[in-house]
Amino acid sequence: MGGSFALALRRAGLVRQVVGYSKSPTTTERARQLGVIDQAAPSALQAVSGSDLILLAVPVAATEPTLKAIRQLVTRDTLVMDVGSTKRDVVEAARRVLKDDVGAFVPCHPIAGKETAGVEHADPDLYRGRTVILTPIERTLVAHLKRAQQAWEAVGGVVQQMSPEAHDAAFAAVSHLPHLLAFAYMQGLASQAKCDDFLALAGPGFRDFSRIAASDPQVWRDILLANRDQVRAQAAQFRQALAALDELLQAGDADGLEAAIRQASDLRAPWRLGGA
Amino acid sequence: MGGSFALALRRAGLVRQVVGYSKSPTTTERARQLGVIDQAAPSALQAVSGSDLILLAVPVAATEPTLKAIRQLVTRDTLVMDVGSTKRDVVEAARRVLKDDVGAFVPCHPIAGKETAGVEHADPDLYRGRTVILTPIERTLVAHLKRAQQAWEAVGGVVQQMSPEAHDAAFAAVSHLPHLLAFAYMQGLASQAKCDDFLALAGPGFRDFSRIAASDPQVWRDILLANRDQVRAQAAQFRQALAALDELLQAGDADGLEAAIRQASDLRAPWRLGGA
Repeated sequence: MGGSFALALRRAGLVRQVVGYSKSPTTTERARQLGVIDQAAPSALQAVSGSDLILLAVPVAATEPTLKAIRQLVTRDTLVMDVGSTKRDVVEAARRVLKDDVGAFVPCHPIAGKETAGVEHADPDLYRGRTVILTPIERTLVAHLKRAQQAWEAVGGVVQQMSPEAHDAAFAAVSHLPHLLAFAYMQGLASQAKCDDFLALAGPGFRDFSRIAASDPQVWRDILLANRDQVRAQAAQFRQALAALDELLQAGDADGLEAAIRQASDLRAPWRLGGA
Repeated sequence: MGGSFALALRRAGLVRQVVGYSKSPTTTERARQLGVIDQAAPSALQAVSGSDLILLAVPVAATEPTLKAIRQLVTRDTLVMDVGSTKRDVVEAARRVLKDDVGAFVPCHPIAGKETAGVEHADPDLYRGRTVILTPIERTLVAHLKRAQQAWEAVGGVVQQMSPEAHDAAFAAVSHLPHLLAFAYMQGLASQAKCDDFLALAGPGFRDFSRIAASDPQVWRDILLANRDQVRAQAAQFRQALAALDELLQAGDADGLEAAIRQASDLRAPWRLGGA
């Protein structure tokens, strides 16, 4: 996410110099070799020194320690953004660490994931045409909010604003629950003796349905835990619907089953990415 | 499925004339207008008259009535194939209807679905590079089995053989269960007041995970019912895995959750369509 943003901002002509830092020195060095960043910093604090725009691209639970590491050099004039898939926890972390300077922080969530993380997959087109959600709080500075919006629009994003709470409720339903289900599905397969034989026969339906199960374990551990109340509420809704379908199967109720599938199909068939 | 097969066989130069029949006269007529078939037949029986290769492309529960409708003109010299996603029920239907001529029937399952059915979506490349499973029984005639294999290879398919039982067990795991879960997921959303707001925010993960929920309700009603014991057994495995993940969430067990996601991710990440 961070590498793609750097490449896209550079192509848009909006940055003179990109400084990168990763906990893993090999990642930082690879980013420099690939031309994703101009300069590799030896620490988060040194990376942000002199920056006017800081993007945190870390698993959401790492937001707080990362903000602490750079706190000393964050003023109200520095725009700090994140790309986390949950927003209430990230906003609380920013409040705790930045205190009076929390207005510098603009919580962001670009809806543009890949299941392949890592700087090798950085792609300047990643955000083109994709929704980017900003969840400002009452203390966010309007000037920073505008700059954040301009930066995301410059890389091709379509910006939308909502509250952190509304964000987390919606993404529990349309992103976090699907990930949880895809993980559970692969685990259910993994526990079976014929797992490999089965997987060798899987087709395009499996490919698409299970793609998100290949997502990064640390990133998704953090997201699911940060938003666990909403995720568990969505999982409960799902379990109810699954139990109802299972009952129709058990009863051999063809009409009831067809009606249920039709409801699902009618809801999904007209859906288009970005509402287009 | 039928239209794509007709277009592909024609392009391969293997057919002189394609006669089509659908229960819906407008479908048959549209297929003729689109050049997918040469001739529209007024009944299934008239469609198969004089044919040396018959492809049944109907929801699996319609296999038996369709075979009955054409029974009179099926001899041991006619190759009859289907494209159904379940095989035990289709084989039983063929035994019941064709009796001594059951050797003419070669049960087929091309792993090449689209969630958009209908002759307008017929595509001569649909089967290119895709696995096509044949599930012959002990009475299937070897000559027909070979011709079936040649026909599928001519349209680009990669043919594989297995028993109807092994087929149904594997596809319950890698196709039927994912469909059931995708249907349940969309139904769980449909029951919520904010469903439309949520869907407007959904991204690429949702798009791929839920794509198969847009599948044809009649086709999937039949598949899930025909294979319901295997599907329900797979659903039970899944429910166990989901309950375990939910417990980890409830307990806030970060390490346990990460390990579970890693198991799922490690199984899915290296998977490739066709085993490539």
